[in-house]
Amino acid sequence: MKAVVLLSGGLDSSTVLYQAKVDGCECYAISFDYQQRHRRELEAAKAIAHCAGVANHQLVSFDLRAWGGSALTDDKIDLPQERSISEMAQNIPVTYVPARNTIFLSFALGYAETLGAERIYIGVNALDYSGYPDCRPDYIQAMQEVFRLGTKQGREGIAIAIFAPLIDLKKTEIVQLGNKLGVPWEKTWSCYAGGDRACGICDSCHLRLAAFAELGLQDPLPYVRYRDQNAE
Amino acid sequence: MKAVVLLSGGLDSSTVLYQAKVDGCECYAISFDYQQRHRRELEAAKAIAHCAGVANHQLVSFDLRAWGGSALTDDKIDLPQERSISEMAQNIPVTYVPARNTIFLSFALGYAETLGAERIYIGVNALDYSGYPDCRPDYIQAMQEVFRLGTKQGREGIAIAIFAPLIDLKKTEIVQLGNKLGVPWEKTWSCYAGGDRACGICDSCHLRLAAFAELGLQDPLPYVRYRDQNAE
Repeated sequence: MKAVVLLSGGLDSSTVLYQAKVDGCECYAISFDYQQRHRRELEAAKAIAHCAGVANHQLVSFDLRAWGGSALTDDKIDLPQERSISEMAQNIPVTYVPARNTIFLSFALGYAETLGAERIYIGVNALDYSGYPDCRPDYIQAMQEVFRLGTKQGREGIAIAIFAPLIDLKKTEIVQLGNKLGVPWEKTWSCYAGGDRACGICDSCHLRLAAFAELGLQDPLPYVRYRDQNAE
Repeated sequence: MKAVVLLSGGLDSSTVLYQAKVDGCECYAISFDYQQRHRRELEAAKAIAHCAGVANHQLVSFDLRAWGGSALTDDKIDLPQERSISEMAQNIPVTYVPARNTIFLSFALGYAETLGAERIYIGVNALDYSGYPDCRPDYIQAMQEVFRLGTKQGREGIAIAIFAPLIDLKKTEIVQLGNKLGVPWEKTWSCYAGGDRACGICDSCHLRLAAFAELGLQDPLPYVRYRDQNAE
């Protein structure tokens, strides 16, 4: 069975790719260069796709800086730094990119229909950044209905089903799952800042480091700074 | 009130732009260069946006030829020619581009949320090409739910509403509406073939010419060939 897997190169989507493999899928990865601040993640996506032995890896390019509206696509908006996890959970952060997952899933849908794929895997998670509207189960369900009605394949009764295996997991549970599946963490990339080394203090680095620390594990990625993960 | 208007430069979307204007909207047009065979339509979109006096016109570029799957994005698939309108209505044609409207609406959604727009106008029509799954009312309704759940603005109760004013109109009714609104037909472009002059025999030319002929009007665009519009 063919599956399209949205692969950013981060911890979550890499775990999802390895999950799709053990689910028995022939995997077709898709990544997006939207001129994000941390385009460096695309090198990670390429490396992970190679390690996982995907059947194909598509890179779709467009420019979301044209209208900005997010700290990830507008250099004039500062990245949040050194926030506690409870602070992150309070509001939709400035790293929210309007309609990003809808855009990503739409391209994945077109690719899936062309391939005749029956599944699309996405690493959304409703717990971290609980504010992100396009990471919640009701949103995924709404997209599922679009998949059914908006494609020839869906109208013919051949579902293109969205799999979001991480949606209810805590970050520590995702790391545990990835460990079990043998995800090569050292090839992944999570940092929003997009430098040569991960910054260690953006929300994304913090969530990742906190999860490894809570499990008593060492994240093999080198970081510029290591916050005290017990400071929270 | 701000509105994002999907503008291909064709007869339908141009009419919709003029409708949005008379609805009292400040219009932000968005067009897509997806390496379609008839990219020439983008010049038309630019001209129409200028004539209509839009507040802004975004051109979003990406390459759907990467996976093809449509006569519009794969030169190896021939365009249907000289088909009758009843033939067109029987099946989903090879000019169907998988997930195209979902991709277009997703970008429009991101742009709209960044602008704080409350409406998105799209020129879909459920009668012509009745096979296109992503032109039907139930699909539009499903996307509306995605708009509500997939954005910060939607979650906060400020709707980004989809307006599809042509969805139940016949092509002749669209031409009548466009005439009333003063759409400059000579600046629009409908032909799929993308030559210097419209071919006159692809499905899109035929639908357009047949509508003008039925109304006893002359389409001001020059065509390479004029089929007998009474031949059907």
